Amino acid sequence: MAHPLPLHAYRMGIDTHEEALVYMRKDCAICRAEGYTANTRLQIKAGERTLIATLNTVAEEILPLGKIGFSESAWEFLNLQTDQEILVLHVPQVYSLSALRKKIYGHSLNATEMSSIIRDIGNRLYSDIEIAGFLTACAGGRLNCSETIALTTTMVSNGNRLYWPEVERVFDKHCIGGLPGNRTTPIVVSIASAAGLVIPKTSSRAITSPAGTADTMEVLTDVDLPLEKLRKVITRTGACLAAGGEVGLSPTDDLLIRIERALNLDSEGQLVASVLSKKMAAGSTHVLIDIPVGPTAKVRDQEQAEKLALLFRNVASGLGLNVRCVVTDGTQAIGNGIGPAEEARDVLSVLRNEAHAPADLTERAVFLAGELLCMATGADRDQAQQQAREILQSGQAWQQFRKICDAQGGLRDIPVASHHIELRSTYAGRLRSMDNRRLARLAKVAGAPSSPEAGLRLRVKVGDMISEHQPVATLYAETSGELAYAREYYHQNRDLFNIAPMDLPLSNVEQLT
Amino acid sequence: MAHPLPLHAYRMGIDTHEEALVYMRKDCAICRAEGYTANTRLQIKAGERTLIATLNTVAEEILPLGKIGFSESAWEFLNLQTDQEILVLHVPQVYSLSALRKKIYGHSLNATEMSSIIRDIGNRLYSDIEIAGFLTACAGGRLNCSETIALTTTMVSNGNRLYWPEVERVFDKHCIGGLPGNRTTPIVVSIASAAGLVIPKTSSRAITSPAGTADTMEVLTDVDLPLEKLRKVITRTGACLAAGGEVGLSPTDDLLIRIERALNLDSEGQLVASVLSKKMAAGSTHVLIDIPVGPTAKVRDQEQAEKLALLFRNVASGLGLNVRCVVTDGTQAIGNGIGPAEEARDVLSVLRNEAHAPADLTERAVFLAGELLCMATGADRDQAQQQAREILQSGQAWQQFRKICDAQGGLRDIPVASHHIELRSTYAGRLRSMDNRRLARLAKVAGAPSSPEAGLRLRVKVGDMISEHQPVATLYAETSGELAYAREYYHQNRDLFNIAPMDLPLSNVEQLT
Repeated sequence: MAHPLPLHAYRMGIDTHEEALVYMRKDCAICRAEGYTANTRLQIKAGERTLIATLNTVAEEILPLGKIGFSESAWEFLNLQTDQEILVLHVPQVYSLSALRKKIYGHSLNATEMSSIIRDIGNRLYSDIEIAGFLTACAGGRLNCSETIALTTTMVSNGNRLYWPEVERVFDKHCIGGLPGNRTTPIVVSIASAAGLVIPKTSSRAITSPAGTADTMEVLTDVDLPLEKLRKVITRTGACLAAGGEVGLSPTDDLLIRIERALNLDSEGQLVASVLSKKMAAGSTHVLIDIPVGPTAKVRDQEQAEKLALLFRNVASGLGLNVRCVVTDGTQAIGNGIGPAEEARDVLSVLRNEAHAPADLTERAVFLAGELLCMATGADRDQAQQQAREILQSGQAWQQFRKICDAQGGLRDIPVASHHIELRSTYAGRLRSMDNRRLARLAKVAGAPSSPEAGLRLRVKVGDMISEHQPVATLYAETSGELAYAREYYHQNRDLFNIAPMDLPLSNVEQLT
Repeated sequence: MAHPLPLHAYRMGIDTHEEALVYMRKDCAICRAEGYTANTRLQIKAGERTLIATLNTVAEEILPLGKIGFSESAWEFLNLQTDQEILVLHVPQVYSLSALRKKIYGHSLNATEMSSIIRDIGNRLYSDIEIAGFLTACAGGRLNCSETIALTTTMVSNGNRLYWPEVERVFDKHCIGGLPGNRTTPIVVSIASAAGLVIPKTSSRAITSPAGTADTMEVLTDVDLPLEKLRKVITRTGACLAAGGEVGLSPTDDLLIRIERALNLDSEGQLVASVLSKKMAAGSTHVLIDIPVGPTAKVRDQEQAEKLALLFRNVASGLGLNVRCVVTDGTQAIGNGIGPAEEARDVLSVLRNEAHAPADLTERAVFLAGELLCMATGADRDQAQQQAREILQSGQAWQQFRKICDAQGGLRDIPVASHHIELRSTYAGRLRSMDNRRLARLAKVAGAPSSPEAGLRLRVKVGDMISEHQPVATLYAETSGELAYAREYYHQNRDLFNIAPMDLPLSNVEQLT
């Protein structure tokens, strides 16, 4: 039931990020006849393409009569031409919203209901508010195993899939995160693929952290590769280190992640579905999951880690995937850099076997690569880790990493931030602990990951004896505004470095350099 | 930490409803220096007033250099003048968001945490997405009694309060809704105030229903009364029948209701907090709560009704309010009209004791007025109901209603819809039941409550024998588009009138008249 009078497309030049908005004049015949007002949801039809958008009504000065304005993302989604004919329709009833309400009221959903929600989100029938309701209703362990399986399979079928008919086993690894700086993936992928495993790694960007693997790799090479290019990289090297978004693997997950980020939410069932849907869509058969545990990591204790590992195994088994979960030490940041560029520096120094390379990052990467080799060969753990270490120390991993970067578009120099501050201790003492969450927050406040150069370089490790005025970290930012804001955050959170004995006052000072 | 360069206010003429948006050029020095992109949340300072708004970045054609554009609601909230100097600041850390995450993850909040969330929502520090997360996390019975008390008291303290120092007891009544057409309030208030009770009734507009009491009363008289006017009405008549919004009673509740409406959500704890915060802020001491129960009413069974009544009593007792809950029959619509204008017709016919007045609406109003008189005088129930009936039948209630309307701005004629359709039955049979939710939805699809004339007039009651082609209802709409859309909805939901024996096919036809 479209209104018989068509309107003509007009590009407003307003960037609303992902939210689709259309703009119509208050005095427009359609608004008046249909009773449309600001915030009405409308179905927009342009040729064969349709979209549900939210209406903003506008004064006559900014939109010519007979036109309908589009936000940038709506314009691009509909692939519009200026003055193209547009039909405006009432929004069709979104039947899955009754399943959403059922979930919000605390009831479990069957596979049909869960699939209908995910399909409608994928078709952009949900508003941001409705997606926020769905994610909140699924948080806090309220998504059960069969719901998670339905969620995952629908997300896979909503997007592209990669197939590897010539390869029997396709490997992947994933760290569930929460540890700033824990950038093992580029090293592990280089070791594993140097050992002959096929490991086409696509990563997402940061959700709530200061950097995701895709953000860090983007500092070093191209990561947004179209599907054809990606296939070439993998055929040439047995691996890739790309961003998942461009390939269209589980694109609905990206719609969910956008709202999870706005809510600063990262729930268990969504996490499992997000990870496994990307792996399934990428055609993986064997997946290693790294679960770091620590009081300020994403997973706080062994019990929670085991619960998460069980959910991963149960869902994976329902999907026919081979999954191994390992629980690792998550008590402090791994490596010294936090933020895309600073983490990239650590990755290169480990791959190049440089003397100052952070030993903890090296050890973690060797351990995880060893676990992958175990899964592949059935060799015992010690033997597999020895093999991984030799590949790294011999330079084969570094050679392989360069090969992957060359195939993706060439290895780039790491940029340097425009501004930095040293953070120094006032008191001498032992560093008792550091707060991962607030370290991550500090790097984000400084601008990471949207400014790749922004972040932190840690100068100390837990257990270190620290003298007075010793630098504990360097803070990097791209703008003076962000640097000032991060400094203010640090002022309010000095105890994130717990460097004194319990009975002494804690204090740090920072100096502009 | 404002950026040192001020911008100047520019009215974009874009109506975004309640959501505050600001528009800045992509090439603006502040965006570039601070790294602001579309969807960044910003703090905006204009003189002494501040607001948190979401940024949309725009092309240079639609915004002059040095200007910052505002959506209509942001412009009005800040009370701006053209070219007024504006400072753009980073958003201060919203500390209550960590309490929100705690709630989302399924933990209970203490009074301080709950208050901090509500205060920050009231100060417009939350985005729509974050409010949706909060409401979803509290839905499905996940708000406990002490959380509800904290929620309620903070909502009361966030707004204006009415005080009645000269009156010992101030009465109020509230129906928790779900029954289309159940418009007893104007009748009950007229009877009770004619009997000498002080009952300053403020009502909200519809949340998920086709009409709230404020929507219906607005058909008959002015309901958006400033505080001073409201006081005069109450002093003159002992009562009022106004909308709550204008008076600023519990304004945070209105911010929550806007998102509840978008989510089509109406949760138990929020419901109790919403009702009791308005009552407390209005200075009520004695409140009657009507809980209709039926398979398609908001409350579906006796057990749920008792649970809700218990929550009402517990929260009220924590707040020092005297509350009586009554459970009433909610198996079918009350009265014949559904939608603001059609319900107003029923209210007037009952008050005027007209022969065709719907008997069920009369009886329900007399019952509830009797319960209020019981609370006031301690008389026995039969006696109190007899008194209520006499006040109605003698015309005192009608006289009192006119007095209230005169004081509020005069009694108006009820408007007539531009379009209507008769819905007729094809088969003869007995009306076994009707579906309240889908009746309400049908009236909403036809345009109620935003078109007050839109809605339904029922021609039959459950239990009636219906002959072939007998009209079962008339459908009203203001635009042909809405009429067509409602007709399509009815086509897909013919069984909402269950008029045939179980073993016969059900069918209705409608004709354009």
